[in-house]
Amino acid sequence: MRTEIAELGEFGLIDRLTKDITATNPATVKGVGDDAAVMDFGAGDTLVLLSSDMLLEGVDFDLTWFPLRHLGYKAVTVGASDILAMNGTPTQLTLSLGISAKLSVEDLEELYAGARAACGELGCDLAGGDTTASVTGLAIAVSVVGTVPRDRIAWRGGASENDLVCITRDLGAAYLGLHLLERERRALAEVENPRPQFEGYEYLLERQLRPRARKDVIDALAAEGILPTAMIDISDGLASDLLQICKSSGCGARVYLDRLPIARESHALAEELHIDPVVAALNGGDDHELLFTVPLGMRERVARLGLGVEIVGHITPAPAGAALVTPDGSNVPLRAQGFRE
Amino acid sequence: MRTEIAELGEFGLIDRLTKDITATNPATVKGVGDDAAVMDFGAGDTLVLLSSDMLLEGVDFDLTWFPLRHLGYKAVTVGASDILAMNGTPTQLTLSLGISAKLSVEDLEELYAGARAACGELGCDLAGGDTTASVTGLAIAVSVVGTVPRDRIAWRGGASENDLVCITRDLGAAYLGLHLLERERRALAEVENPRPQFEGYEYLLERQLRPRARKDVIDALAAEGILPTAMIDISDGLASDLLQICKSSGCGARVYLDRLPIARESHALAEELHIDPVVAALNGGDDHELLFTVPLGMRERVARLGLGVEIVGHITPAPAGAALVTPDGSNVPLRAQGFRE
Repeated sequence: MRTEIAELGEFGLIDRLTKDITATNPATVKGVGDDAAVMDFGAGDTLVLLSSDMLLEGVDFDLTWFPLRHLGYKAVTVGASDILAMNGTPTQLTLSLGISAKLSVEDLEELYAGARAACGELGCDLAGGDTTASVTGLAIAVSVVGTVPRDRIAWRGGASENDLVCITRDLGAAYLGLHLLERERRALAEVENPRPQFEGYEYLLERQLRPRARKDVIDALAAEGILPTAMIDISDGLASDLLQICKSSGCGARVYLDRLPIARESHALAEELHIDPVVAALNGGDDHELLFTVPLGMRERVARLGLGVEIVGHITPAPAGAALVTPDGSNVPLRAQGFRE
Repeated sequence: MRTEIAELGEFGLIDRLTKDITATNPATVKGVGDDAAVMDFGAGDTLVLLSSDMLLEGVDFDLTWFPLRHLGYKAVTVGASDILAMNGTPTQLTLSLGISAKLSVEDLEELYAGARAACGELGCDLAGGDTTASVTGLAIAVSVVGTVPRDRIAWRGGASENDLVCITRDLGAAYLGLHLLERERRALAEVENPRPQFEGYEYLLERQLRPRARKDVIDALAAEGILPTAMIDISDGLASDLLQICKSSGCGARVYLDRLPIARESHALAEELHIDPVVAALNGGDDHELLFTVPLGMRERVARLGLGVEIVGHITPAPAGAALVTPDGSNVPLRAQGFRE
């Protein structure tokens, strides 16, 4: 018997692989199923978090256009976002590399410089890792440990009816930045001194190549006395990640198309490339922003956050499902994406 | 300027990439430079440990002969050994996979079954990870969190003159098991119903395909009241890993050839394959046993440990360097190996 992974999709695969896994170690508060594992080692009100990510050349990045310094920075962002999504603070990080022979020592120093810059911004220590030779491309694995006060933790499963759905910035820009880079790479593949045309789209490149982990939002939530009822890192696109919140919380959601923040540059490039900017926002992925829910009564406090935070919808009872509401009032069901193929 | 990684070697590369890294987070007790990072989150006498490893197809394993169940088991052993080498207990683990399309869902279930079996033996929870598509081979990253009482931690840097050098089992068997598997693969590459000849060498296969993390030794050390002055996981071979202890502790070492435990099966296969079994023990790697040092006065307690633990030498002042003493009394300096190419 052979079941292809494509038959299940990424989320179906994860469900199948983890369905019988139970936590038995007394220190485990939560194993699989949220942005990070949660541990209680007896440090009073401090819970410890652990999350891991993997980035592979040719799938998650293309070294023909991804500067290694930015790649190191982004790897830390990808890892740290999962800790932030628990309302936690990243504290230590390991970076493991599978290194192909085409990379030089200086290349790896660039990658490390980027990782250290991101760690520095977060106050998180680069505290170890592993190096192995790779006969294929560059492989990067990042694991992040963090902490969160017990009474500040935000799970995926805490959203309730009427809660507001908030996102921390415009969406789709990272995905469109990827398409821009791919277009220029194809266009210039045979050109001797290529001069890619990025004018006007620097913002999209920055969102793809140098996304920032939103520690500023986590700090602002604490300062405003806002405890999200649920939170998740938007790594797979708003649709997939909101569906995760709905699944874990046993609820539905409505997101309003005309409230979805999409950057001016995203609209412009989407038109050039004949991509629907709403699809980019819903399913593009790679944003590494946060999606969180708060009780309805927090609307004014959320408005005071600034930092790009927008209210885009609300939580509904489960039977309503999760849908995008278009300006004419029709509901378009949201669908999950998995691996980018 | 381009420096090839081969010019520095694995250890030189790690030194160069990590030389300017300093820990600034107040919870970090030790960042890079030991088997695991060490954190103090305020849990009384409990310190928290974090270690990460990466295993890549075609470099660290060959799926033509590595059963996926065993590979999952071994990935956990590789990760957990670093926590044990701090005299700690593995408690939670993440497993991240880069999955090539040639693998089926059932293949991955096998890999997970092996990982869960190893976790179960260790009392460590499989608590998360990541999955991504791979366009090349299977990539596995494992990160392990553990704990250790503050007064029980074993660093690499604590060995002193006259301490006894101990290892937890015979060495070289995993490396010879690898050569046996490679020989049969080559011999049977064109054969329709291959029947590999492993009779008499099952022990070597087991050491390569299903190495056990030596939690039994860590438990026995505690039961006997032995606190190692230094400890390390033997992943790169006795020579490299003893040199790490010497470097961190500022000492030298003498290891006696006639005390090096080498299994009967290792001697037999080494003779067949014209491999020096001592070289396999010193530089073969992949043993995932422990190397530790104890004060001279602990000799009798070490003898009571059993479990395959052997005293193979002693610590000397630094100027003497690290060497293998042959039966005729000559000293052969030990040299470090890095990546297996």
